[in-house]
Amino acid sequence: MNIESYLNAESALIEAAMAAFMPEAAEPLGGHVEAMRYSLFAGGKRIRPILCLAAARAVSGELEAVDALMPVACALEYIHTYSLIHDDLPAMDNDDLRRGKPTNHVRFGEAAAILAGDGLLTDAFALLTNRQYLRLPQAAILAIVGQIATAAGSFGMVGGQALDIANERKDVSFDLLRTIHQYKTGALIRCAVLCGAIGAGASDAQLAAMDGYGRQIGLGFQIVDDLLDSTATREKLGKSAGSDAKHGKATYPALFGIEKTRNLAQEAIDAAIQSLALLDNKADPLRAIARYIFDRSR
Amino acid sequence: MNIESYLNAESALIEAAMAAFMPEAAEPLGGHVEAMRYSLFAGGKRIRPILCLAAARAVSGELEAVDALMPVACALEYIHTYSLIHDDLPAMDNDDLRRGKPTNHVRFGEAAAILAGDGLLTDAFALLTNRQYLRLPQAAILAIVGQIATAAGSFGMVGGQALDIANERKDVSFDLLRTIHQYKTGALIRCAVLCGAIGAGASDAQLAAMDGYGRQIGLGFQIVDDLLDSTATREKLGKSAGSDAKHGKATYPALFGIEKTRNLAQEAIDAAIQSLALLDNKADPLRAIARYIFDRSR
Repeated sequence: MNIESYLNAESALIEAAMAAFMPEAAEPLGGHVEAMRYSLFAGGKRIRPILCLAAARAVSGELEAVDALMPVACALEYIHTYSLIHDDLPAMDNDDLRRGKPTNHVRFGEAAAILAGDGLLTDAFALLTNRQYLRLPQAAILAIVGQIATAAGSFGMVGGQALDIANERKDVSFDLLRTIHQYKTGALIRCAVLCGAIGAGASDAQLAAMDGYGRQIGLGFQIVDDLLDSTATREKLGKSAGSDAKHGKATYPALFGIEKTRNLAQEAIDAAIQSLALLDNKADPLRAIARYIFDRSR
Repeated sequence: MNIESYLNAESALIEAAMAAFMPEAAEPLGGHVEAMRYSLFAGGKRIRPILCLAAARAVSGELEAVDALMPVACALEYIHTYSLIHDDLPAMDNDDLRRGKPTNHVRFGEAAAILAGDGLLTDAFALLTNRQYLRLPQAAILAIVGQIATAAGSFGMVGGQALDIANERKDVSFDLLRTIHQYKTGALIRCAVLCGAIGAGASDAQLAAMDGYGRQIGLGFQIVDDLLDSTATREKLGKSAGSDAKHGKATYPALFGIEKTRNLAQEAIDAAIQSLALLDNKADPLRAIARYIFDRSR
Protein backbone atom coordinates (compact mmCIF):
# COMPACT_ATOMS: atom_id res chain seq x y z
CA MET A 1 0.00 0.00 0.00
CA ASN A 2 1.04 3.59 -0.61
CA ILE A 3 1.01 5.06 2.88
CA GLU A 4 1.20 8.68 1.73
CA SER A 5 -1.94 8.49 -0.39
CA TYR A 6 -3.71 6.44 2.29
CA LEU A 7 -2.97 9.11 4.91
CA ASN A 8 -4.00 11.92 2.56
CA ALA A 9 -7.29 10.24 1.72
CA GLU A 10 -8.05 9.57 5.38
CA SER A 11 -7.16 13.15 6.34
CA ALA A 12 -9.53 14.48 3.69
CA LEU A 13 -12.39 12.30 4.98
CA ILE A 14 -11.74 13.38 8.58
CA GLU A 15 -11.56 17.06 7.67
CA ALA A 16 -14.80 16.86 5.73
CA ALA A 17 -16.47 15.20 8.71
CA MET A 18 -15.14 17.82 11.13
CA ALA A 19 -16.37 20.59 8.85
CA ALA A 20 -19.84 19.02 8.98
CA PHE A 21 -19.70 18.49 12.76
CA MET A 22 -18.47 22.05 13.40
CA PRO A 23 -19.80 24.41 10.70
CA GLU A 24 -19.19 28.15 10.88
CA ALA A 25 -21.61 29.69 13.36
CA ALA A 26 -23.83 32.74 13.10
CA GLU A 27 -23.51 35.58 15.58
CA PRO A 28 -23.42 35.90 18.50
CA LEU A 29 -21.13 32.86 18.75
CA GLY A 30 -19.42 33.26 15.37
CA GLY A 31 -16.19 34.62 16.84
CA HIS A 32 -15.77 31.79 19.33
CA VAL A 33 -16.43 29.11 16.71
CA GLU A 34 -14.02 30.84 14.33
CA ALA A 35 -11.28 30.61 16.98
CA MET A 36 -11.92 26.87 17.41
CA ARG A 37 -12.03 26.25 13.64
CA TYR A 38 -8.82 28.23 13.12
CA SER A 39 -6.82 25.64 15.04
CA LEU A 40 -8.93 22.63 14.07
CA PHE A 41 -8.39 23.28 10.35
CA ALA A 42 -4.76 24.36 10.57
CA GLY A 43 -3.65 21.18 8.81
CA GLY A 44 -2.42 18.67 11.37
CA LYS A 45 -1.40 15.12 10.50
CA ARG A 46 -4.68 13.78 11.98
CA ILE A 47 -2.74 10.80 13.30
CA ARG A 48 -5.13 10.08 16.21
CA PRO A 49 -8.35 9.92 14.15
CA ILE A 50 -6.51 8.01 11.40
CA LEU A 51 -5.33 5.44 13.98
CA CYS A 52 -8.86 5.15 15.35
CA LEU A 53 -10.36 4.40 11.94
CA ALA A 54 -7.49 2.09 10.97
CA ALA A 55 -7.98 0.09 14.17
CA ALA A 56 -11.69 -0.29 13.38
CA ARG A 57 -10.83 -1.47 9.87
CA ALA A 58 -8.29 -3.94 11.21
CA VAL A 59 -10.96 -5.57 13.37
CA SER A 60 -14.08 -5.45 11.28
CA GLY A 61 -13.21 -4.50 7.72
CA GLU A 62 -16.81 -3.35 7.25
CA LEU A 63 -17.30 0.13 5.96
CA GLU A 64 -20.30 0.83 8.22
CA ALA A 65 -18.29 0.13 11.35
CA VAL A 66 -15.64 2.59 10.21
CA ASP A 67 -18.28 5.15 9.28
CA ALA A 68 -20.00 4.89 12.66
CA LEU A 69 -16.68 5.72 14.30
CA MET A 70 -16.22 9.06 12.52
CA PRO A 71 -17.59 11.16 15.45
CA VAL A 72 -15.19 9.32 17.78
CA ALA A 73 -12.25 9.93 15.44
CA CYS A 74 -13.11 13.62 15.16
CA ALA A 75 -13.65 14.00 18.91
CA LEU A 76 -10.08 12.71 19.41
CA GLU A 77 -8.82 15.42 17.04
CA TYR A 78 -10.83 18.11 18.89
CA ILE A 79 -9.12 17.03 22.10
CA HIS A 80 -5.66 16.92 20.54
CA THR A 81 -6.24 20.40 19.08
CA TYR A 82 -7.40 21.84 22.42
CA SER A 83 -4.25 20.46 24.06
CA LEU A 84 -2.06 22.23 21.49
CA ILE A 85 -3.89 25.56 21.99
CA HIS A 86 -3.44 25.41 25.77
CA ASP A 87 0.17 24.13 25.55
CA ASP A 88 1.09 27.09 23.34
CA LEU A 89 -0.27 29.70 25.80
CA PRO A 90 2.13 32.28 27.26
CA ALA A 91 1.79 30.71 30.72
CA MET A 92 2.77 27.30 29.28
CA ASP A 93 5.24 26.89 26.38
CA ASN A 94 4.66 30.44 25.06
CA ASP A 95 4.96 29.42 21.41
CA ASP A 96 4.01 31.81 18.63
CA LEU A 97 4.04 29.43 15.67
CA ARG A 98 2.15 26.18 15.13
CA ARG A 99 1.79 24.35 11.82
CA GLY A 100 3.31 27.37 10.09
CA LYS A 101 0.66 29.77 11.40
CA PRO A 102 0.44 32.16 14.35
CA THR A 103 -0.73 30.25 17.43
CA ASN A 104 -4.33 30.68 18.59
CA HIS A 105 -3.61 33.24 21.32
CA VAL A 106 -1.42 35.29 18.97
CA ARG A 107 -4.28 35.44 16.50
CA PHE A 108 -7.31 35.78 18.84
CA GLY A 109 -5.90 36.88 22.19
CA GLU A 110 -5.27 34.84 25.31
CA ALA A 111 -8.80 34.79 26.77
CA ALA A 112 -10.33 33.66 23.47
CA ALA A 113 -7.64 31.00 23.07
CA ILE A 114 -8.27 29.55 26.54
CA LEU A 115 -11.98 29.42 25.71
CA ALA A 116 -11.37 27.93 22.25
CA GLY A 117 -9.51 25.12 24.01
CA ASP A 118 -12.18 24.70 26.66
CA GLY A 119 -14.81 24.65 23.92
CA LEU A 120 -13.06 22.01 21.81
CA LEU A 121 -12.55 19.77 24.85
CA THR A 122 -16.17 20.02 25.99
CA ASP A 123 -17.64 19.86 22.49
CA ALA A 124 -15.71 16.63 21.91
CA PHE A 125 -17.92 14.96 24.54
CA ALA A 126 -21.04 16.56 23.04
CA LEU A 127 -20.05 15.14 19.65
CA LEU A 128 -19.44 11.66 21.11
CA THR A 129 -22.97 11.57 22.56
CA ASN A 130 -24.85 13.54 19.89
CA ARG A 131 -27.90 11.44 19.00
CA GLN A 132 -27.85 12.75 15.45
CA TYR A 133 -24.62 10.87 14.75
CA LEU A 134 -24.84 8.03 17.25
CA ARG A 135 -24.73 4.68 15.46
CA LEU A 136 -22.63 2.64 17.87
CA PRO A 137 -24.17 0.39 20.55
CA GLN A 138 -24.74 2.26 23.84
CA ALA A 139 -22.30 0.04 25.73
CA ALA A 140 -19.57 0.76 23.17
CA ILE A 141 -20.05 4.52 23.22
CA LEU A 142 -20.07 4.60 27.03
CA ALA A 143 -16.83 2.60 27.10
CA ILE A 144 -15.35 4.97 24.51
CA VAL A 145 -16.33 8.11 26.45
CA GLY A 146 -14.73 6.58 29.54
CA GLN A 147 -11.53 5.67 27.65
CA ILE A 148 -11.21 9.14 26.15
CA ALA A 149 -11.95 11.06 29.37
CA THR A 150 -9.45 8.91 31.27
CA ALA A 151 -6.73 9.18 28.62
CA ALA A 152 -7.19 12.95 28.28
CA GLY A 153 -7.67 13.73 31.99
CA SER A 154 -5.58 14.13 35.10
CA PHE A 155 -4.19 10.60 34.96
CA GLY A 156 -3.53 10.98 31.25
CA MET A 157 -2.74 13.91 28.97
CA VAL A 158 -3.49 16.78 31.39
CA GLY A 159 -1.51 15.09 34.15
CA GLY A 160 1.39 14.58 31.75
CA GLN A 161 1.43 18.24 30.80
CA ALA A 162 1.28 19.22 34.49
CA LEU A 163 4.25 16.94 35.18
CA ASP A 164 6.14 18.28 32.19
CA ILE A 165 5.65 21.90 33.30
CA ALA A 166 6.51 21.10 36.93
CA ASN A 167 9.80 19.49 35.87
CA GLU A 168 11.10 22.11 33.46
CA ARG A 169 14.77 22.94 34.15
CA LYS A 170 15.04 20.03 36.57
CA ASP A 171 17.13 16.91 36.53
CA VAL A 172 14.68 14.32 35.20
CA SER A 173 15.35 10.60 35.55
CA PHE A 174 14.61 8.26 32.66
CA ASP A 175 11.75 6.75 34.68
CA LEU A 176 10.11 10.13 35.13
CA LEU A 177 10.68 11.07 31.47
CA ARG A 178 8.96 7.84 30.41
CA THR A 179 6.06 8.57 32.76
CA ILE A 180 5.67 12.12 31.41
CA HIS A 181 5.63 10.82 27.83
CA GLN A 182 3.22 8.01 28.62
CA TYR A 183 0.74 10.40 30.17
CA LYS A 184 1.23 13.41 27.93
CA THR A 185 1.31 11.76 24.49
CA GLY A 186 1.08 8.02 24.85
CA ALA A 187 -2.26 7.80 26.63
CA LEU A 188 -4.34 9.54 23.94
CA ILE A 189 -2.62 7.70 21.06
CA ARG A 190 -3.20 4.33 22.71
CA CYS A 191 -6.78 5.45 23.43
CA ALA A 192 -7.39 6.31 19.75
CA VAL A 193 -6.43 2.77 18.76
CA LEU A 194 -8.51 1.17 21.53
CA CYS A 195 -11.60 3.28 20.73
CA GLY A 196 -11.50 2.18 17.11
CA ALA A 197 -11.23 -1.44 18.19
CA ILE A 198 -14.01 -1.14 20.80
CA GLY A 199 -16.33 0.58 18.32
CA ALA A 200 -15.76 -2.15 15.75
CA GLY A 201 -16.60 -4.86 18.29
CA ALA A 202 -13.13 -6.30 18.88
CA SER A 203 -12.70 -9.58 20.78
CA ASP A 204 -10.64 -9.65 23.97
CA ALA A 205 -7.66 -11.05 22.08
CA GLN A 206 -7.94 -8.34 19.44
CA LEU A 207 -8.22 -5.68 22.15
CA ALA A 208 -5.08 -6.98 23.83
CA ALA A 209 -3.23 -6.83 20.50
CA MET A 210 -4.45 -3.26 19.95
CA ASP A 211 -3.43 -2.31 23.46
CA GLY A 212 0.13 -3.48 22.82
CA TYR A 213 0.24 -1.75 19.45
CA GLY A 214 -1.19 1.48 20.92
CA ARG A 215 1.31 1.58 23.76
CA GLN A 216 4.33 0.97 21.55
CA ILE A 217 3.27 3.34 18.80
CA GLY A 218 2.61 6.07 21.40
CA LEU A 219 6.10 5.57 22.75
CA GLY A 220 7.66 5.54 19.27
CA PHE A 221 5.74 8.66 18.27
CA GLN A 222 7.05 10.62 21.24
CA ILE A 223 10.64 9.50 20.75
CA VAL A 224 10.47 10.58 17.11
CA ASP A 225 8.93 13.91 18.17
CA ASP A 226 11.85 14.50 20.54
CA LEU A 227 14.26 13.65 17.72
CA LEU A 228 12.58 16.05 15.30
CA ASP A 229 12.53 18.84 17.86
CA SER A 230 16.27 18.50 18.33
CA THR A 231 17.29 17.95 14.69
CA ALA A 232 14.77 19.57 12.33
CA THR A 233 14.35 23.21 11.39
CA ARG A 234 11.54 25.60 12.22
CA GLU A 235 10.58 25.53 8.52
CA LYS A 236 10.31 21.75 8.39
CA LEU A 237 8.35 21.52 11.66
CA GLY A 238 6.03 24.50 11.10
CA LYS A 239 6.64 25.32 14.75
CA SER A 240 9.59 26.46 16.82
CA ALA A 241 12.42 23.90 16.69
CA GLY A 242 14.60 23.33 19.72
CA SER A 243 11.61 24.20 21.90
CA ASP A 244 12.39 21.39 24.34
CA ALA A 245 15.93 22.62 24.95
CA LYS A 246 14.67 26.22 25.27
CA HIS A 247 12.32 25.15 28.07
CA GLY A 248 14.92 22.95 29.73
CA LYS A 249 12.80 19.85 29.09
CA ALA A 250 14.08 16.34 29.43
CA THR A 251 14.12 14.48 26.09
CA TYR A 252 15.37 11.18 24.71
CA PRO A 253 18.16 12.83 22.67
CA ALA A 254 19.29 14.81 25.72
CA LEU A 255 19.48 11.60 27.79
CA PHE A 256 20.74 9.14 25.15
CA GLY A 257 22.14 11.06 22.18
CA ILE A 258 20.74 10.94 18.62
CA GLU A 259 21.92 7.47 17.56
CA LYS A 260 20.68 5.56 20.61
CA THR A 261 17.42 7.51 20.47
CA ARG A 262 16.89 6.45 16.87
CA ASN A 263 17.44 2.83 17.88
CA LEU A 264 14.91 3.14 20.70
CA ALA A 265 12.35 4.53 18.25
CA GLN A 266 13.00 1.63 15.88
CA GLU A 267 12.56 -0.86 18.72
CA ALA A 268 9.20 0.66 19.71
CA ILE A 269 7.96 0.55 16.12
CA ASP A 270 9.07 -3.07 15.71
CA ALA A 271 7.32 -4.00 18.96
CA ALA A 272 4.14 -2.22 17.79
CA ILE A 273 4.07 -4.27 14.57
CA GLN A 274 4.89 -7.44 16.51
CA SER A 275 1.83 -6.84 18.73
CA LEU A 276 -0.41 -7.20 15.67
CA ALA A 277 0.82 -10.74 14.85
CA LEU A 278 -2.60 -12.35 15.29
CA LEU A 279 -4.33 -9.87 12.94
CA ASP A 280 -4.64 -10.50 9.20
CA ASN A 281 -3.94 -8.12 6.31
CA LYS A 282 -6.82 -5.84 7.33
CA ALA A 283 -4.31 -4.56 9.88
CA ASP A 284 -1.79 -3.60 7.16
CA PRO A 285 -2.64 0.12 7.43
CA LEU A 286 -1.79 -0.01 11.15
CA ARG A 287 1.53 -1.65 10.26
CA ALA A 288 2.23 0.94 7.57
CA ILE A 289 1.39 3.81 9.94
CA ALA A 290 3.90 2.45 12.45
CA ARG A 291 6.62 2.42 9.79
CA TYR A 292 5.59 5.87 8.59
CA ILE A 293 5.96 7.32 12.10
CA PHE A 294 9.51 6.02 12.26
CA ASP A 295 10.33 7.31 8.76
CA ARG A 296 9.40 10.85 9.88
CA SER A 297 12.58 10.83 11.96
CA ARG A 298 14.89 10.49 8.96
CA MET B 1 -38.65 22.43 55.97
CA ASN B 2 -35.57 24.23 57.25
CA ILE B 3 -33.76 25.12 54.06
CA GLU B 4 -30.48 26.05 55.74
CA SER B 5 -30.06 22.68 57.42
CA TYR B 6 -31.21 20.89 54.26
CA LEU B 7 -28.56 22.69 52.21
CA ASN B 8 -25.87 22.06 54.83
CA ALA B 9 -26.68 18.35 55.00
CA GLU B 10 -26.68 18.03 51.20
CA SER B 11 -23.39 19.94 50.93
CA ALA B 12 -21.78 17.62 53.45
CA LEU B 13 -22.92 14.54 51.49
CA ILE B 14 -21.64 15.99 48.23
CA GLU B 15 -18.29 16.96 49.70
CA ALA B 16 -17.83 13.52 51.21
CA ALA B 17 -18.59 11.97 47.81
CA MET B 18 -16.17 14.29 46.01
CA ALA B 19 -13.47 13.47 48.54
CA ALA B 20 -14.00 9.79 47.74
CA PHE B 21 -14.08 10.36 43.96
CA MET B 22 -10.96 12.56 44.05
CA PRO B 23 -8.65 11.48 46.90
CA GLU B 24 -5.25 13.05 47.36
CA ALA B 25 -2.81 11.53 44.89
CA ALA B 26 0.66 10.14 45.35
CA GLU B 27 3.61 11.57 43.43
CA PRO B 28 4.23 12.21 40.62
CA LEU B 29 0.72 13.65 40.17
CA GLY B 30 0.22 14.85 43.76
CA GLY B 31 0.79 18.51 42.91
CA HIS B 32 -1.72 18.57 40.08
CA VAL B 33 -4.40 16.84 42.14
CA GLU B 34 -3.69 19.21 45.02
CA ALA B 35 -4.37 22.19 42.72
CA MET B 36 -7.71 20.68 41.66
CA ARG B 37 -8.72 19.82 45.22
CA TYR B 38 -7.76 23.30 46.42
CA SER B 39 -10.57 24.85 44.38
CA LEU B 40 -12.97 21.92 44.62
CA PHE B 41 -12.93 22.01 48.42
CA ALA B 42 -12.89 25.79 48.82
CA GLY B 43 -16.43 25.75 50.18
CA GLY B 44 -18.85 26.68 47.42
CA LYS B 45 -22.63 26.60 47.84
CA ARG B 46 -22.81 23.35 45.79
CA ILE B 47 -26.03 24.64 44.27
CA ARG B 48 -25.74 22.63 41.02
CA PRO B 49 -25.24 19.21 42.64
CA ILE B 50 -27.88 20.04 45.24
CA LEU B 51 -30.36 20.90 42.46
CA CYS B 52 -29.50 17.68 40.65
CA LEU B 53 -30.19 15.53 43.72
CA ALA B 54 -33.32 17.52 44.65
CA ALA B 55 -34.71 17.04 41.13
CA ALA B 56 -34.14 13.29 41.43
CA ARG B 57 -35.91 13.25 44.78
CA ALA B 58 -38.82 15.25 43.38
CA VAL B 59 -39.36 12.62 40.69
CA SER B 60 -38.63 9.34 42.40
CA GLY B 61 -38.39 9.83 46.13
CA GLU B 62 -36.35 6.65 46.34
CA LEU B 63 -33.03 6.87 48.09
CA GLU B 64 -31.29 4.55 45.62
CA ALA B 65 -32.15 6.78 42.69
CA VAL B 66 -30.67 9.75 44.50
CA ASP B 67 -27.61 7.76 45.49
CA ALA B 68 -27.00 6.57 41.95
CA LEU B 69 -26.92 10.21 40.86
CA MET B 70 -24.07 11.21 43.17
CA PRO B 71 -21.35 10.90 40.46
CA VAL B 72 -23.49 13.08 38.18
CA ALA B 73 -24.01 15.69 40.91
CA CYS B 74 -20.27 15.78 41.65
CA ALA B 75 -19.33 15.95 37.96
CA LEU B 76 -21.48 19.09 37.71
CA GLU B 77 -19.52 20.62 40.59
CA TYR B 78 -16.19 19.67 38.97
CA ILE B 79 -17.31 21.54 35.85
CA HIS B 80 -18.56 24.56 37.76
CA THR B 81 -15.25 24.68 39.66
CA TYR B 82 -13.15 24.48 36.48
CA SER B 83 -15.15 27.38 35.02
CA LEU B 84 -14.38 29.53 38.08
CA ILE B 85 -10.65 28.72 37.89
CA HIS B 86 -10.46 29.68 34.22
CA ASP B 87 -12.71 32.77 34.64
CA ASP B 88 -10.41 34.06 37.39
CA LEU B 89 -7.24 33.81 35.23
CA PRO B 90 -5.29 37.01 34.48
CA ALA B 91 -6.28 36.81 30.80
CA MET B 92 -9.98 36.66 31.80
CA ASP B 93 -11.39 38.44 34.88
CA ASN B 94 -8.01 38.59 36.66
CA ASP B 95 -9.48 38.05 40.13
CA ASP B 96 -7.25 37.33 43.10
CA LEU B 97 -9.88 36.29 45.63
CA ARG B 98 -12.53 33.55 45.44
CA ARG B 99 -14.57 32.21 48.36
CA GLY B 100 -12.31 34.18 50.68
CA LYS B 101 -9.14 32.47 49.47
CA PRO B 102 -6.45 33.34 46.90
CA THR B 103 -7.59 32.21 43.46
CA ASN B 104 -6.04 29.08 41.97
CA HIS B 105 -3.48 30.85 39.77
CA VAL B 106 -2.42 33.10 42.67
CA ARG B 107 -1.78 30.01 44.77
CA PHE B 108 -0.32 27.60 42.17
CA GLY B 109 0.72 29.73 39.21
CA GLU B 110 -1.01 30.30 35.92
CA ALA B 111 0.08 27.16 34.08
CA ALA B 112 -0.95 24.88 36.95
CA ALA B 113 -4.31 26.71 37.24
CA ILE B 114 -5.10 26.28 33.54
CA LEU B 115 -4.28 22.57 33.90
CA ALA B 116 -6.28 22.22 37.13
CA GLY B 117 -9.28 23.55 35.18
CA ASP B 118 -8.62 21.30 32.19
CA GLY B 119 -8.27 18.36 34.57
CA LEU B 120 -11.52 19.01 36.44
CA LEU B 121 -13.43 19.39 33.17
CA THR B 122 -12.04 16.19 31.67
CA ASP B 123 -12.20 14.20 34.90
CA ALA B 124 -15.90 15.11 35.18
CA PHE B 125 -16.55 12.97 32.10
CA ALA B 126 -14.35 10.20 33.44
CA LEU B 127 -16.38 10.24 36.67
CA LEU B 128 -19.69 10.15 34.77
CA THR B 129 -18.62 7.00 32.92
CA ASN B 130 -16.55 5.31 35.62
CA ARG B 131 -17.79 1.71 35.80
CA GLN B 132 -16.97 1.54 39.48
CA TYR B 133 -19.76 4.03 40.26
CA LEU B 134 -22.12 3.46 37.35
CA ARG B 135 -25.55 2.44 38.61
CA LEU B 136 -27.81 4.29 36.17
CA PRO B 137 -29.19 2.66 33.01
CA GLN B 138 -26.87 3.10 30.00
CA ALA B 139 -29.43 5.16 28.10
CA ALA B 140 -29.81 7.56 31.03
CA ILE B 141 -26.09 8.07 31.52
CA LEU B 142 -25.56 8.66 27.80
CA ALA B 143 -28.34 11.27 27.80
CA ILE B 144 -26.81 12.88 30.88
CA VAL B 145 -23.31 13.04 29.35
CA GLY B 146 -24.85 14.66 26.27
CA GLN B 147 -26.81 17.19 28.34
CA ILE B 148 -23.78 18.14 30.40
CA ALA B 149 -21.37 18.44 27.46
CA THR B 150 -23.88 20.57 25.55
CA ALA B 151 -24.69 22.81 28.51
CA ALA B 152 -21.01 23.29 29.37
CA GLY B 153 -19.70 23.62 25.81
CA SER B 154 -19.53 26.20 23.05
CA PHE B 155 -23.28 26.59 22.81
CA GLY B 156 -23.56 26.74 26.58
CA MET B 157 -21.26 27.89 29.37
CA VAL B 158 -18.03 28.30 27.36
CA GLY B 159 -19.86 30.19 24.62
CA GLY B 160 -21.44 32.46 27.24
CA GLN B 161 -18.06 33.27 28.74
CA ALA B 162 -16.65 33.96 25.26
CA LEU B 163 -19.56 36.31 24.55
CA ASP B 164 -19.16 37.98 27.93
CA ILE B 165 -15.44 38.63 27.35
CA ALA B 166 -16.01 39.79 23.77
CA ASN B 167 -18.59 42.35 24.93
CA GLU B 168 -16.72 43.90 27.86
CA ARG B 169 -16.88 47.73 27.74
CA LYS B 170 -19.44 47.61 24.96
CA ASP B 171 -23.00 48.81 24.79
CA VAL B 172 -24.94 45.58 25.37
CA SER B 173 -28.64 45.31 24.52
CA PHE B 174 -31.00 43.57 26.91
CA ASP B 175 -31.41 40.76 24.37
CA LEU B 176 -27.68 40.13 24.26
CA LEU B 177 -27.38 40.35 28.05
CA ARG B 178 -30.09 37.72 28.39
CA THR B 179 -28.33 35.51 25.87
CA ILE B 180 -25.00 35.83 27.69
CA HIS B 181 -26.63 34.89 31.01
CA GLN B 182 -28.57 32.01 29.51
CA TYR B 183 -25.41 30.49 28.06
CA LYS B 184 -22.95 31.38 30.79
CA THR B 185 -24.94 30.50 33.93
CA GLY B 186 -28.40 29.37 32.96
CA ALA B 187 -27.49 26.41 30.79
CA LEU B 188 -25.55 24.45 33.45
CA ILE B 189 -28.12 25.15 36.20
CA ARG B 190 -30.99 24.00 33.97
CA CYS B 191 -28.85 20.99 33.03
CA ALA B 192 -28.30 20.07 36.69
CA VAL B 193 -32.06 19.91 37.23
CA LEU B 194 -32.66 17.95 34.01
CA CYS B 195 -29.89 15.42 34.77
CA GLY B 196 -31.41 14.67 38.16
CA ALA B 197 -34.80 14.15 36.56
CA ILE B 198 -33.44 11.99 33.74
CA GLY B 199 -31.46 9.84 36.15
CA ALA B 200 -34.53 9.27 38.31
CA GLY B 201 -36.57 8.17 35.31
CA ALA B 202 -38.83 11.21 34.91
CA SER B 203 -41.86 11.05 32.60
CA ASP B 204 -42.12 13.51 29.70
CA ALA B 205 -44.49 15.71 31.70
CA GLN B 206 -42.14 15.73 34.66
CA LEU B 207 -39.20 16.54 32.38
CA ALA B 208 -41.11 19.48 30.90
CA ALA B 209 -41.88 20.77 34.41
CA MET B 210 -38.21 20.44 35.37
CA ASP B 211 -37.16 22.19 32.19
CA GLY B 212 -39.35 25.19 33.06
CA TYR B 213 -38.11 25.22 36.64
CA GLY B 214 -34.48 24.90 35.54
CA ARG B 215 -34.72 27.77 33.05
CA GLN B 216 -36.39 30.14 35.49
CA ILE B 217 -34.16 29.32 38.41
CA GLY B 218 -31.09 29.79 36.22
CA LEU B 219 -32.36 33.21 35.23
CA GLY B 220 -33.23 34.15 38.82
CA PHE B 221 -29.85 32.94 40.06
CA GLN B 222 -27.99 35.16 37.60
CA ILE B 223 -30.11 38.24 38.32
CA VAL B 224 -29.44 37.79 42.05
CA ASP B 225 -25.74 37.32 41.33
CA ASP B 226 -25.70 40.63 39.44
CA LEU B 227 -27.49 42.27 42.36
CA LEU B 228 -25.02 40.91 44.90
CA ASP B 229 -22.04 41.98 42.81
CA SER B 230 -23.35 45.54 42.76
CA THR B 231 -24.57 45.80 46.37
CA ALA B 232 -22.62 43.44 48.63
CA THR B 233 -19.15 43.85 50.07
CA ARG B 234 -15.99 41.89 49.31
CA GLU B 235 -16.22 40.40 52.81
CA LYS B 236 -19.77 39.13 52.31
CA LEU B 237 -19.08 37.72 48.84
CA GLY B 238 -15.69 36.18 49.57
CA LYS B 239 -14.62 37.55 46.19
CA SER B 240 -14.09 40.95 44.67
CA ALA B 241 -17.33 42.97 44.74
CA GLY B 242 -18.12 45.41 41.95
CA SER B 243 -16.19 43.13 39.58
CA ASP B 244 -18.81 43.52 36.83
CA ALA B 245 -18.56 47.32 36.86
CA LYS B 246 -14.75 47.09 36.95
CA HIS B 247 -14.78 45.02 33.76
CA GLY B 248 -17.43 47.19 32.11
CA LYS B 249 -19.85 44.27 31.99
CA ALA B 250 -23.53 44.64 31.28
CA THR B 251 -25.69 43.66 34.26
CA TYR B 252 -29.35 43.82 35.27
CA PRO B 253 -28.79 46.58 37.85
CA ALA B 254 -26.86 48.65 35.30
CA LEU B 255 -29.73 48.33 32.81
CA PHE B 256 -32.73 48.48 35.15
CA GLY B 257 -31.63 49.83 38.54
CA ILE B 258 -31.76 47.93 41.84
CA GLU B 259 -35.52 47.98 42.49
CA LYS B 260 -36.64 46.79 39.07
CA THR B 261 -33.90 44.15 39.10
CA ARG B 262 -35.17 42.81 42.42
CA ASN B 263 -38.68 42.56 40.94
CA LEU B 264 -37.35 40.67 37.91
CA ALA B 265 -35.60 38.21 40.23
CA GLN B 266 -38.83 37.71 42.19
CA GLU B 267 -40.75 37.07 38.94
CA ALA B 268 -38.26 34.43 37.81
CA ILE B 269 -38.43 32.65 41.18
CA ASP B 270 -42.25 32.72 41.15
CA ALA B 271 -42.27 31.32 37.62
CA ALA B 272 -39.83 28.57 38.68
CA ILE B 273 -42.15 27.46 41.50
CA GLN B 274 -45.16 27.73 39.20
CA SER B 275 -43.48 25.32 36.77
CA LEU B 276 -43.57 22.62 39.44
CA ALA B 277 -47.37 22.73 39.83
CA LEU B 278 -47.93 19.13 38.75
CA LEU B 279 -45.36 17.77 41.23
CA ASP B 280 -46.31 16.73 44.78
CA ASN B 281 -44.60 17.55 48.04
CA LYS B 282 -41.50 15.53 47.08
CA ALA B 283 -40.66 18.67 45.07
CA ASP B 284 -40.74 20.89 48.18
CA PRO B 285 -36.94 21.07 48.39
CA LEU B 286 -36.86 22.43 44.82
CA ARG B 287 -39.44 25.05 45.83
CA ALA B 288 -37.48 25.97 48.95
CA ILE B 289 -34.23 26.25 46.97
CA ALA B 290 -35.93 28.70 44.60
CA ARG B 291 -37.01 30.90 47.53
CA TYR B 292 -33.57 30.60 49.11
CA ILE B 293 -31.90 31.86 45.94
CA PHE B 294 -34.10 34.94 46.00
CA ASP B 295 -33.48 35.50 49.69
CA ARG B 296 -29.73 35.70 49.04
CA SER B 297 -30.39 39.06 47.40
CA ARG B 298 -31.67 40.71 50.59
